[in-house]
Formats: sequence, structure tokens, C-alpha cells
Amino acid sequence: MSGLLSEALDEARDVVLQELDAIIPGGTPDQRLLKELILDYPLRAAKGLRPALCLQACRALGGREDMVRRTAAVLELYHNAFLLHDDVEDGSHLRRGAPALHREHGVPVAINTGDAMLALALGPLLENTARVGLGRALHILERVAHMVRESVEGQALELSWIQRQVWDLSEDDYTRMVVQKTAWYSFIAPVQVGAIAAGARPDQLAALLPFARDLGIAFQVQDDLLNLEEGRDAYGKEWAGDLWEGKRTIILLHTLRHLDAADADRARALLARPRPEPATEALVAELCALRAAGELTPAGHDRLLSRISGDAGPPKDAAEVAWLRDRIDDCGSLAHARAFATRHARAAGEALTACHPWLPPSPARDFLHALVDYVLERTR
Amino acid sequence: MSGLLSEALDEARDVVLQELDAIIPGGTPDQRLLKELILDYPLRAAKGLRPALCLQACRALGGREDMVRRTAAVLELYHNAFLLHDDVEDGSHLRRGAPALHREHGVPVAINTGDAMLALALGPLLENTARVGLGRALHILERVAHMVRESVEGQALELSWIQRQVWDLSEDDYTRMVVQKTAWYSFIAPVQVGAIAAGARPDQLAALLPFARDLGIAFQVQDDLLNLEEGRDAYGKEWAGDLWEGKRTIILLHTLRHLDAADADRARALLARPRPEPATEALVAELCALRAAGELTPAGHDRLLSRISGDAGPPKDAAEVAWLRDRIDDCGSLAHARAFATRHARAAGEALTACHPWLPPSPARDFLHALVDYVLERTR
Repeated sequence: MSGLLSEALDEARDVVLQELDAIIPGGTPDQRLLKELILDYPLRAAKGLRPALCLQACRALGGREDMVRRTAAVLELYHNAFLLHDDVEDGSHLRRGAPALHREHGVPVAINTGDAMLALALGPLLENTARVGLGRALHILERVAHMVRESVEGQALELSWIQRQVWDLSEDDYTRMVVQKTAWYSFIAPVQVGAIAAGARPDQLAALLPFARDLGIAFQVQDDLLNLEEGRDAYGKEWAGDLWEGKRTIILLHTLRHLDAADADRARALLARPRPEPATEALVAELCALRAAGELTPAGHDRLLSRISGDAGPPKDAAEVAWLRDRIDDCGSLAHARAFATRHARAAGEALTACHPWLPPSPARDFLHALVDYVLERTR
Repeated sequence: MSGLLSEALDEARDVVLQELDAIIPGGTPDQRLLKELILDYPLRAAKGLRPALCLQACRALGGREDMVRRTAAVLELYHNAFLLHDDVEDGSHLRRGAPALHREHGVPVAINTGDAMLALALGPLLENTARVGLGRALHILERVAHMVRESVEGQALELSWIQRQVWDLSEDDYTRMVVQKTAWYSFIAPVQVGAIAAGARPDQLAALLPFARDLGIAFQVQDDLLNLEEGRDAYGKEWAGDLWEGKRTIILLHTLRHLDAADADRARALLARPRPEPATEALVAELCALRAAGELTPAGHDRLLSRISGDAGPPKDAAEVAWLRDRIDDCGSLAHARAFATRHARAAGEALTACHPWLPPSPARDFLHALVDYVLERTR
């Protein structure tokens, strides 16, 4: 990573932790308990990508750091709230090298802590008036409201594909989902609110949009690649989590298009089946709930068992996931995805270059360009 | 229920459904799928209490319905988002006579649908400027931001009591938690934003606060009473859900204060143990996750079993919950809680009467008074 990049990310992490400490109330012992939970994820080694993007976009357009540092911290708060809820939704085990919060504190605390982060994001955005004036503060609020809507719509789209077993998806479908789910809150909104804080004109915001969007697409595809490339040889470690979860990625869609009909059917059938964990969990939960309620006759017991095993089939096993992983290699799908990510990163770089006539040279502009290479080169 | 009351609640439900239909995007097939999930709870037979309170508070202060109808719908959206997440957190089975949303669509969809509702609440509040002017719109936004913070802090407080097995709680502790968790979003905020939309002065807002707060306390204690009074004789139906969950209520705190030392110890010990369902679920989830990851040595397996059974003990059973329920009757704790609720409802009525000098007679004012009786008389 270039020095420019790592300095900007380090600075962003410092800004975030200082601002979050100011934003999150900790006056009473009860508030301090909640504050500790809220700061758990942000204090783990985060990349600081979103707040850095926000700070540097503001600077690149001639703004000062103090205009946007609190807003940058709020974006990081949203990011971590989404991570908390995603980890529960995906049944994840780890986050940034430690157990996911719901594994340590239980699902109820994890859901409520995420809600608390979403709740605390609103106040600081209302107080922005003092920093950037009423007009820009309201514009930033409106953009953040839009961002959150895009994120949950993208997440809903992905969940509905998994739940309804939709595989008939084009790369455009995938791109649309990723722009909503990832690019909006990770790239588009950070750039936009940074630029708005600095007083960007509407045409400047419009010109920055393709830069942020294409960068977001490249970033997510690189994420999908890392998920499949990492940890294959690390014995005893879960690898290929996306395959276990049945996530629709540019990689897997490519493989499914290139397998022969029989293998494609086999792949779709095994992807449709649950991970070992959630099915068993759901089964036991249902059985226990019905038994506790005294509503489980012997016939009801049998019906429940057959319904659950019949609907979703027996869980995937490691040999099947390994088979699928090999088919991905057969089809050259990783190379295809790498080329796809590179194309979008290049488009992002060109979109940024097209802004040069009104975006003068500066370390901040250099940071934005350096980010284009970073999203492809990063290893975590 | 008085005709005045039921008409106002009916009107509020209609307003909410019309406004939610306008607020929630449904232009694309993907948006329509999400919209259906978002409207699921609001379309079930809700009481309409919060939006009615908001509409009538606005009218009582001389405002018009169109100033506040969208805000009233937004409050109902928050309420239903909290219900969705609470149902997941509490492991609830039913909501308003049908399976809880996570039972029908799974935990991931339920969490994300709640997040979508929280996300969609922000836009309409920003658009309030056109209805009530910038000053009142910003004031309403600030009050809603405050409300959400109080709610999640109250929820965090209750979860931490359950998780850390805190029973050394006074009625003041309980009241503080309930004001944060329930009264703020169900009573205080609806009254405040209705009044702000109508142009209330700060001293009027301050005078309405004890009315809404005490009404909220009475409402929650009545809720706790209904939970223990209902369904006792309905064979095969789960009853006393609050006891299964180990919720701190004014009723249970009274019982624990009045049992002899041995019975109080026994009660606390059994309340500390989990419901049958979540413990087994967590156990199986952990075991399967570790086994899937290839990390479960025989020794690890034993340690996990002993940790989980040792930490939380075997689950409660129905006979124990029935024993506890009988102790509540022995101690006269229901009568104590009823008197507590009545005292707070009476205080709410008196606080409202104290507003009469500047709150002229109107059907809206009559509604607010009728609500005081309703919270004690309601049976659901």
C-alpha cells in the first residue's frame, strides 16, 4: 500500500474513534455498557476506507477536514451497524479476527446494538448545520437517507434471490444488486457527502458518481475473489463461505453459465441446500418451541421433520462445496471476475480523470486515484 | 371502548395505511417484494394508538390533520420496526394473531425488513418542511432522533439486566427502563411531534410531558398484567411469556421482595435459566458450526456441552413457571401492579387537566382524556 494511502487511512481511523467517542453518550453506567458494545467493531482493526474517502473527497474539492469529520464518523457508524446485522443474518462466526458480536453477546444484544448505532447516526447529522450551514446539512441528510434506502433494498434483493433460489441472473442483475448493497454506502455516499460539505455543484456531484459506483463494483468483486482464494490450504479453517451461504457472485454466475447441463443442475441443487448450521438450528428451534407449547403430537413431530428436510434437503457437506470450488477453477471464473473488476476499476479511474478540469491536483486527488489500484491489490 | 376512542383509532389506522403506501417505494418488482414485507405487520390488526395520539395531540393544539398525518405514519413505521426486531430478540412465536415475521420468512429477512423500515422513516421527516415549515420540521426530526435513542437505550438496559441476571432493582429502576423503552416512542414522542406540528410553545411541550410519560408507564404495567392474566386456562397455549423470558416487571419485582429467602432464591435461580428453545438452539448452532469448521475435538465437544449447560443450567420447565406464577398470586403482586398502574394513569389525567387553561375543550382533548381510562381497561 502506498504511503499516501496508508497515512490517509490511519488518519481516518483516528478521526472516527475521536468523533464516535464524542457522539456516543457514556454519562451513566448503563450508557457506558451500551457504548462499549457500539465501539466493539469500530475498535477492531477496520480499514477506514469509507471515512477516508469522505475526508479526501471533501479536501479534493477545497473543503476543510473539520467540515466533514463528524459526517465521516457517522458513515463508519452506519457501516458497522450493517456489519453487525449482516453477521447475524449470515450466521457469521468471525469479524476482523475475533468472534462476531452475536457469538459473544447473543443475537438480541447484537440486533439492538446495531439499532442503537442507526439511532445515534441521526443526531450528529442534524447538528451539521453549525459546521456547513443549513443548506448543505439538509443535503447531506437527504443523501444519507437515500443511501440507507439503497443499502436495505440491495440487501433485500440478495436475500430474496437466496430465499427464492433465483439463479437466472445476468451480470447486469448482479451489478445492480452490488451497486445498491455495497457501492452506495461504501463509495457513492462517502464521496457525495464529502463533496457536498465542500460545496460541490450538482454537475460536479454527477461527474463523481460513476467514479464511486465503478470503484464500488470493483471493490465487491475483489471481495468475492478474496473469499474464494483465501484459506484454501489452511487446514481446519472454513473456506469458501460464499459457497456455503449460496451467495450470487459474478464468479459463480460465470461458472453456472459454463458448466454442462448436468453439472449446472447439480451445482444449483447443492447451492439450494442450507449450510449445516441454520437448518439444524431452525429444526431444533421449531421442535422445541412446539414441544414447549404442548402442541407437538407424534404426527406433528413427523410432519415437521419431513417438511424441513423435504423443503431444503439435507445440508451441504464439505465434499460438495469442494467439488463446486473445483468447477469454478475449471471454468476460469476467477480470471473472468478479475477482468470484470479490472474493467470497472479502470472505468472509475477514467471517470476521475474526467473531473480534472475542475478538480485541481492535490494529495487528496492523488489519494482518490491511489484507491483505484488499492481495491484490486488489497488482500483483505 | 368509547365511540370517540374507537373512531379516532379507526381513523388513525386508515391514515397510516394510506401514508405508508405513499412512503414505501413499490415501482419495481424487487421493491414490491420488500414493500409487502414492510406492510405485513402494519396490515395486521394494529391498535393505531401511536398515530391516533399524534393526530389528536396536533388537533388539540389547534393544528390540522394534514400537518401531521405523514409524521404519524412514520411513528407507526418505527413502532413496527421495533416490533419486528423485538420479536427476533425475544424469540416470539406470534404477533397480532399470526406467526411472527421471522417465523414465516426467517431471521435474516426479518432483521433487514426492520432496517428497511428504519431507513424509510427518514425521508418523509425531511419532506415535512413543505407541510409545517423548516423550523417545525427540524424540531420534529430532532425529537424523533431523541426518541429512537431513548428506545434503544431502554432496550439495551432491559437486555443487560436479563443477561447479567440483575434482580436487585427498585420500582424506580423499572420505571426508568419503561419510560425509555416504551413511553418515549409510544406516548411522549407522538404527543410532542403532534404538538410541535401544531406550533406548540416550549412551556406547552413541557406541560404535556408528564401526561405522556405517566400514561406510558400505566400502559406498560397493564401490558405486563395482561401477559400474566391471559390464557391461563387455555390448554396447550403458551402463557406467562414474560416469566419464560425472565422479564423484569413491577409484578415480579414485588413478588421477589415478598417471598421468604428460600423461595426468592429458588425463583431467581429458575428465572436465570433459559427458555427451552434458545439454549438448545445456541448449543446446536455452536456444535454444528465447530464441527463444520473441523475444529471440534472430542475434548472440545465435552467442554462446549459443559460450558453451555453449566453456564445457564437446564432450561426452565412448565411446572417451574407454574410454581412461580402461583407465588405471584400468593404475594398479591397483580393487585399491587394494578394499583401502581392506576396511580400513574391518574397522574396522567391530572397532568392533562393542568393543561386546560391553554388547551381548550375539543373532541381531540376528550380523546386524550379517554385514553387515560382506556390504558387501564384494555384487554389486549
